[in-house]
Amino acid sequence: MHALESSEAMAFFLAIGILLAAARLLGEVARRLNQPVVVGELLAGVLLGPTLLGAYAPRAMGFLFPRTGPCAVALDGLSQLSVVLFLLVAGMEVDLSAVWRQGRSVISVSIAGIVVPFGLGFIAVWWAPHHFGIQGHIDRLVFALFFATALSISSLPVIAKTLMDLDLYRSDMGMTVIAAAIFNDVVGWIVFAVLAGMIGASSFNRFSIVHIVALTTGFSLAILVLGRWVFDYVLYLLENRIHWPGAILSFAFVVTLIGAAGMQWIGIHPIFGSFLVGVAIGDSPHLREKTRKAIEEFVSFVFAPLFFAGIGLKVNFAAHFDLALTVFVVVIASIGKVLGCGLGARLSGTSWPESWAIGFGMNSRGAMQIILGVFALHHGIIHERMFVALVTMAIVTSMTSGIAIKRLVTFRRPYRFIEHLARQSFLSALQARDRREAIRELAEAASSASGLNSRCIESEVLKREEAMPTGISNGIAVPHARLDGLARPVVCLGISREGIDFDASDGEPARIIFLILTPKKDDAAQLELILDIMTTLKDRALREKLLAAADYDELVEAIRGAGSASRP
Amino acid sequence: MHALESSEAMAFFLAIGILLAAARLLGEVARRLNQPVVVGELLAGVLLGPTLLGAYAPRAMGFLFPRTGPCAVALDGLSQLSVVLFLLVAGMEVDLSAVWRQGRSVISVSIAGIVVPFGLGFIAVWWAPHHFGIQGHIDRLVFALFFATALSISSLPVIAKTLMDLDLYRSDMGMTVIAAAIFNDVVGWIVFAVLAGMIGASSFNRFSIVHIVALTTGFSLAILVLGRWVFDYVLYLLENRIHWPGAILSFAFVVTLIGAAGMQWIGIHPIFGSFLVGVAIGDSPHLREKTRKAIEEFVSFVFAPLFFAGIGLKVNFAAHFDLALTVFVVVIASIGKVLGCGLGARLSGTSWPESWAIGFGMNSRGAMQIILGVFALHHGIIHERMFVALVTMAIVTSMTSGIAIKRLVTFRRPYRFIEHLARQSFLSALQARDRREAIRELAEAASSASGLNSRCIESEVLKREEAMPTGISNGIAVPHARLDGLARPVVCLGISREGIDFDASDGEPARIIFLILTPKKDDAAQLELILDIMTTLKDRALREKLLAAADYDELVEAIRGAGSASRP
Repeated sequence: MHALESSEAMAFFLAIGILLAAARLLGEVARRLNQPVVVGELLAGVLLGPTLLGAYAPRAMGFLFPRTGPCAVALDGLSQLSVVLFLLVAGMEVDLSAVWRQGRSVISVSIAGIVVPFGLGFIAVWWAPHHFGIQGHIDRLVFALFFATALSISSLPVIAKTLMDLDLYRSDMGMTVIAAAIFNDVVGWIVFAVLAGMIGASSFNRFSIVHIVALTTGFSLAILVLGRWVFDYVLYLLENRIHWPGAILSFAFVVTLIGAAGMQWIGIHPIFGSFLVGVAIGDSPHLREKTRKAIEEFVSFVFAPLFFAGIGLKVNFAAHFDLALTVFVVVIASIGKVLGCGLGARLSGTSWPESWAIGFGMNSRGAMQIILGVFALHHGIIHERMFVALVTMAIVTSMTSGIAIKRLVTFRRPYRFIEHLARQSFLSALQARDRREAIRELAEAASSASGLNSRCIESEVLKREEAMPTGISNGIAVPHARLDGLARPVVCLGISREGIDFDASDGEPARIIFLILTPKKDDAAQLELILDIMTTLKDRALREKLLAAADYDELVEAIRGAGSASRP
Repeated sequence: MHALESSEAMAFFLAIGILLAAARLLGEVARRLNQPVVVGELLAGVLLGPTLLGAYAPRAMGFLFPRTGPCAVALDGLSQLSVVLFLLVAGMEVDLSAVWRQGRSVISVSIAGIVVPFGLGFIAVWWAPHHFGIQGHIDRLVFALFFATALSISSLPVIAKTLMDLDLYRSDMGMTVIAAAIFNDVVGWIVFAVLAGMIGASSFNRFSIVHIVALTTGFSLAILVLGRWVFDYVLYLLENRIHWPGAILSFAFVVTLIGAAGMQWIGIHPIFGSFLVGVAIGDSPHLREKTRKAIEEFVSFVFAPLFFAGIGLKVNFAAHFDLALTVFVVVIASIGKVLGCGLGARLSGTSWPESWAIGFGMNSRGAMQIILGVFALHHGIIHERMFVALVTMAIVTSMTSGIAIKRLVTFRRPYRFIEHLARQSFLSALQARDRREAIRELAEAASSASGLNSRCIESEVLKREEAMPTGISNGIAVPHARLDGLARPVVCLGISREGIDFDASDGEPARIIFLILTPKKDDAAQLELILDIMTTLKDRALREKLLAAADYDELVEAIRGAGSASRP
């Protein structure tokens, strides 16, 4: 077998076409229902896989998405390529300086996020093996270790996608979760590599545990330090010295693939390699926004949906479903992860609501569990029912994590931005022509509302803005800072007729610009205000009213009107 | 076998990374040597394949590019996907109205381009079987039919790539060649399907020949008529009514894959399906330039190089090389195709040089011959030496076709643009702010140089411009028209300080704008003048001198200086 025959190629094209169409359609439905897009994409795979299509039209499914044979291999190759590229994009979005800033909470969250679920999982299996249906040839110790590991590995791709879908990826909390997830997962994969070594699975046996740790650390540092410097220089050359059309795009691809292969060689999942390359390349000021955008769009709208939908294809969720076991696994997994990460975050000084949001964020599993599960099933470590329970757990935690993060702000009465927007803080016509000028104008308004020095506000906001632009979608930007000496949040709103580039993910210039200043000690306020702005302004009609508002009273009327209509 | 194991996935990522890097590097080298990029990309595969890497480092090649096993299948799947996407882009570039305009020559070129090489190939095998080493189990009739078919199928992807690389894709000649190649290839594949039926290869046996012809015609018309209308409406909805990020990109992908699968189902190669979908989608005014660009860049800089380099991987060119046979095959193939197509073009009223250019353009083979060859080898129709000869023929004809087209204008002393650029036709500072105004200004200059009515010039040039924008790379645009009543070519040159969007393939606004008017009867003049402009202005330093030229004398001095330096 070396190539796709004619009828296999036909099935391959059809399979990709149908999978992509279903994933994008259901992803869009999820988006309109205010759910993370990834939930719809996962669901598309479940519907097209053995669970539904396979049950009612097994021949159609067998033709489109065969479990074995060339077509299955080709789809798997494409899917592995897709997840590697998706992590490249996720990496490009990461702001290294923001990750360092969150240093303490990252370490605390990721350690607690491994230890607690691992311990809970191990104890559960060890003390109540009958609950897990352990019998026959299955080894209790190996099963317990595997189960504990499976509970402690988060899913970086799903977490990244959920945070992107919620527009929280670039927030401080988002960066903490991502950094902790990377750390968590690297440790998790090392544990898994050891475990695989114990049962003698050869492909993971290349190195000893000490070598794996050393190689992973060395390779990561090489990419992040040396690689970052080299990439920046190469990008500079390609951008300014050598006229070579499309070279940067190809270069990004090539180093991503080599990084992925390198991590794979060590025995760690390849997506860590592409993620780190993404971080290193994304950090270069010579990566033009156009190139970044081109990669991002292609990956988000083609590769990522294919990968996430592909997950659902792998399992028949109906046939091997064991409700009691599944509920048990979901509960243990969620308690371990949310409690572990939440407490870890709280211990490092994060506020309670944000700690819980971090806990739920880290609770996402997904691809990783399935990869692990397939491996374990293949080696006879677990049985089919456990496999389905693990996969279901992965999907349920992925689905609930977005919802939970969003709902968390309703634990207590949340901040509403309109309550902190004073009359003099509404500028119905900004004069500014660029980001810096806009922030200056708004900082002056904020100064008169708060009594703080406007220079000081401006410099803090600019520092934040430089670390990570604050343009979100729909022509909205939310420059912000946490300041000492503030008693309560201060929100200013400026309308720009011409629009100002705030580097939003959809490329639209910002016409509605909120400056958000929150007290340094109040961790929750910033996140809640941003969420409130996003939720309230989701409505296009309201955004248009807001753009048309001539004065503060019209503004308040528009927002209160929308609020009373859409909220209880 | 259902998935890539860890070490296979590593090889897969490395293979793609290395293949892409080599293809892009050698492609760039080819470009700098004024060769079509595709030649370098093909060569990259030959170097990395069994011919070179396999000979000196067989283990490395066996690891990266195995001939069988999951990794080979995954690479093959990606490569098939790549060529389908490449043909989508090629299709999007096609201007249907231009194809209709070339109607008569298209039919004449494509029929002669099939009949002549087919006849020549068949006669050669039938009368001189010993030259082809036919012996043992090989059936002379089947061999002769197969060989004749192989000679008469052009390679649409290679032709499209060569013409794009030479910037001639959008010219009248380019459109004739592409339209003829499509027609030619559809007929060729139908003949091949019949032939495959004769030897009982099951996957091609689904339909009878009548059904294949009827289905192909029906499906093509459905895409080009009904599909075009539906796509346009869907694009309109997605663009104006439904806010759904990235929907158009995904939509284009999905219909492309379904179109490819449809053609595959009929028994015709899937690339015809994606090509036709590309034509239909590209025709919609609601396809934004941004989306078109995003698809084009990704495909040209990632997928296409992977596909073309992948061709070279398939064969060991050294081991089975039979010089006499190869030369014989190359000669018969080239004579048949160039003569057939060239005479076909000439008979339909094209000038001699352009007819030969069309002949050489159609002479490109490539992927198709290899697909055919693999199939024939697999079914014992041909032997290995013939296989290598066919593949070499495909590569040689692909490599020479670009060179030949470029050289054709030197058959006689070609037109030089500077000789037709009068003093009053140089406008060193255009006032125009858009394309229409620029054409008006230049048309007025052309009117005083030619004595023709400026309104008339303007309307003819605009008509051409609307059918197909004339921005080429490097900030150059070449609006043009063929006019009655001109005795000799008229060239005007306007410099725009701010740049005017002429929809160039590299997205750069045009600052150097040539208006080219040629006599209606002189087919060669337009092409030669455009080629001369492109060749002369390839030099960046010269372009800068030209932008800085204050008057006609400085302009002429700059160009003559460059000409005497670089030409004999």
